[in-house]
Amino acid sequence: MNKPNTRKTVIDPWGSTYVADYAKLFEEFGIEPFDEEIMKRIPNPSKYMRRGIVFGHRGFQTILEAIEKKEPFAVMSGIKPSGPFHLGSLLTASEIVYFQKEFGAKAFYCIADIESYADNRIPYEEATGTAVDNLADILALGLDPKNAYIWRQSQEKRVMDYAFIFGANVTTATMNAVYGEQTNFGLYNSALIQCGDIDLPQHPDFGGPKPVVVPVGLDQDPHIRLVRDLARRLQSTYGFVLPSATFHRLMRGLDGSEKMSKRNPMSYFDLDEDLDSIKSKVMDALTGGRATIAEQKKLGGEPEKCMIQELCIFHFVEEDEKIIEAHQNCKNGTLLCGEHKQEVVDIIFSWIKKHRRKKEKEIDTARKILNVG
Amino acid sequence: MNKPNTRKTVIDPWGSTYVADYAKLFEEFGIEPFDEEIMKRIPNPSKYMRRGIVFGHRGFQTILEAIEKKEPFAVMSGIKPSGPFHLGSLLTASEIVYFQKEFGAKAFYCIADIESYADNRIPYEEATGTAVDNLADILALGLDPKNAYIWRQSQEKRVMDYAFIFGANVTTATMNAVYGEQTNFGLYNSALIQCGDIDLPQHPDFGGPKPVVVPVGLDQDPHIRLVRDLARRLQSTYGFVLPSATFHRLMRGLDGSEKMSKRNPMSYFDLDEDLDSIKSKVMDALTGGRATIAEQKKLGGEPEKCMIQELCIFHFVEEDEKIIEAHQNCKNGTLLCGEHKQEVVDIIFSWIKKHRRKKEKEIDTARKILNVG
Repeated sequence: MNKPNTRKTVIDPWGSTYVADYAKLFEEFGIEPFDEEIMKRIPNPSKYMRRGIVFGHRGFQTILEAIEKKEPFAVMSGIKPSGPFHLGSLLTASEIVYFQKEFGAKAFYCIADIESYADNRIPYEEATGTAVDNLADILALGLDPKNAYIWRQSQEKRVMDYAFIFGANVTTATMNAVYGEQTNFGLYNSALIQCGDIDLPQHPDFGGPKPVVVPVGLDQDPHIRLVRDLARRLQSTYGFVLPSATFHRLMRGLDGSEKMSKRNPMSYFDLDEDLDSIKSKVMDALTGGRATIAEQKKLGGEPEKCMIQELCIFHFVEEDEKIIEAHQNCKNGTLLCGEHKQEVVDIIFSWIKKHRRKKEKEIDTARKILNVG
Repeated sequence: MNKPNTRKTVIDPWGSTYVADYAKLFEEFGIEPFDEEIMKRIPNPSKYMRRGIVFGHRGFQTILEAIEKKEPFAVMSGIKPSGPFHLGSLLTASEIVYFQKEFGAKAFYCIADIESYADNRIPYEEATGTAVDNLADILALGLDPKNAYIWRQSQEKRVMDYAFIFGANVTTATMNAVYGEQTNFGLYNSALIQCGDIDLPQHPDFGGPKPVVVPVGLDQDPHIRLVRDLARRLQSTYGFVLPSATFHRLMRGLDGSEKMSKRNPMSYFDLDEDLDSIKSKVMDALTGGRATIAEQKKLGGEPEKCMIQELCIFHFVEEDEKIIEAHQNCKNGTLLCGEHKQEVVDIIFSWIKKHRRKKEKEIDTARKILNVG
C-alpha cells in the first residue's frame, strides 16, 4: 500500500487507496507499468489514462504499433448479464467506446451469459432481458454498432470451439495455479470460454490475427494470463497475436468500503436506480471532511480520501481542469463537503437523465442486435 | 475372476476370461445384471445378448417398457475417429443397428472428434477423413441413415450447449471422483461433451425426453454414471429420462493378451487391414489346443481359452448352432486347431470381402451426411 505511482498523472489523489501493491504486480506478476513512455505515444489519452486509473498493461506495445502504423486492431470487453449497468460496467464500456472512437478499433462486446449461468444460476433466457438492457447502455455511451461485433456466449459457437481447443491445451495443474481449486467445475469452463471471447476478434471470420486490447480490472488478470499463455502455445496453428490488456484501478465503495459490492448497496449505484436512492447514497458517501466546518476551513479537507472526488474523476466530469479545481478548493478549505455533494448530485443527475434519454432510443437496436423478438 | 455368470446363456465358454469381478460390479458399483428376467422380455435378443456378452446394464427397464408399449426410444453410441473400424468398434456399431432394425429405435451416432483432439491431438480436419471412413463402415453394417442422426462433436452446438450447462452443475470433486485426477484438462471437457452426446436424443429438436440406450464397454461406465447423475439433477429443468446403458464384455487380445490394444498389433485387426495380415494374426491367435495332436484327440481341446472360438462368438458367426457345434467338436477332440483356424479365416475373409463391397457403395452417402465436399 501507499506505493508511489510510477508516473505523473494529471492528478493523483489516490495514494491511500491503491487496491494492490504495484511494485509486486510489476515485479512478481509481470504486469508492466502504463508509464510516461506509453502515454507519449498515445495521441489523445482517455480520461482513465490521463488520471492514472489505467496503471498497468500486458502487451500494449502491439496496440501502440497498430496506432502508429494505422493498422487495424480490436478492442474487446464484455459484461456478465446479472443485473443493470453499474459504475463498474461503465468503466470498461467507456474504454471500449474510447478505442473505437479515437482509433477506429473494431469493438467486440461479449454478453457473458455462460458465466452468469455458471456463477449466478441465471438461465440464458432470463439473462436475455438483462443483456438487451446492458447493451442499450453501452450503445447510449456511444458504441457504434456498425463497427462492432456483439454476441452472447451461449449463442456463439466459434467461442465454444475455442474453449474446447483451449481446454485440450491446458493442464489441470495450470488451471488450478491460475484459478485456485474451484468447487464449481463450471467456473473453469467459464474461464476457457472467456479466453475464447478474447480471441474471437482474431478468428478467420473477422479477418484473422490482429492486435487486441482488453480493458479490465485487475481481478481479470488470471484470464489475461491464461489467454496469453494459450495464444503463445497455439500460435503455430492459429497465428494469434498475443492479446493485450490495460489494467484499471477500481473505485472503492462510496461508503469508504474496500470495493463496490452488490452485497453492500450503499457502496455503489446502478445507472437505472431511482434518483432519490442515488442521491441518498451520494449524500451519505465518505468524504475527506474534518470534524467541524471551522476546522475544515482552517486545515482544508482531504480530497484523496473523498468518494465525491472519485465519482467525478472516474465517471462524471470530463474536464481535467474542473477535477483539479475541486481538488484544490477542497484542500484549501474553500469547498465544503455539503456544498460539493450537492453540486455533484446535480452533475450526476444531469448525466444520468441524458444517458437515460439516449438509452431509451437504443432499446430497439439492442433487441435487433441480440435477435430478441 | 471365475465368477459364475448370473444367467444361463446359449453358450458360456468364458469362465476364465471375465474381464471384471461381476459380483463387485453388481454390488459395489450398482450395475444391474442383464438377467433371465430381462431376456424374457426381449422378443428377439441380439447375438451379444444371447451369448452373454451383454452382462449388465443401468436403467434398461425404460427400454423394455418402451419396447412393450411400442413407444419411441433411441439408441446412441459413437466412435472416436482416430483410426479405421476395428473389432471393438464393430461391437457397439452392431448393437446400434440391432436396436434400430428390431425395434425401430432412432439411432444417434456420434463422431467424437473433440475427444480425438483432446486425447490424440488429431485436428478436426484430419479427423474428417477418418470419420467418413468410419461412417461408411456402420452404414455397410446396416445402419439406416433415414432413421438416424449422425454428427461430429465439433460441429454440433447443441452438444456443446449441454456440456457447458453440465459443467456448471457438477463439482470439481465429482469430476475427480469419476475420472481421477487427469493431467490433460481437455479430458474433463471431453467427458462433459460425451454426456451432451448421450442426451442429444432428448433435445427438444429431436422430440424431447425419451428413453435412450447406450451400448458400451465397461470402460465407459464413468460417462454413464455422470450422465445419469446430471440427468437426475437437471430433470426439473429438462425433463430428461435417465439414459440407460448395456454393458458388453470386451474380447481379449487375439494373442491371448488381456485386451486388444493398438500398441500390440497382434492383439486385433482392423476391418480394412490387408487380408494376408489378418490371416497371419488369426493363424497366430491363442487357441485351447493341447501340446500334441494325439493328446488333443484324446483329451479334447479347451474352447473356453480359444480366441478362434471368440472371433466366431463375438463377430463372424450369426447362427448359435454353429457356435455350439464348433465348441462341442473342440471339446470332444474332433475339431483340431489348424483345421478350425483355416475354416475361420475363410469365414472372416468372406465376411470382410462382402463388407468391403457394401462399404464402397456407402462412401458417398457418408460424405453427404458429414457435409464433406
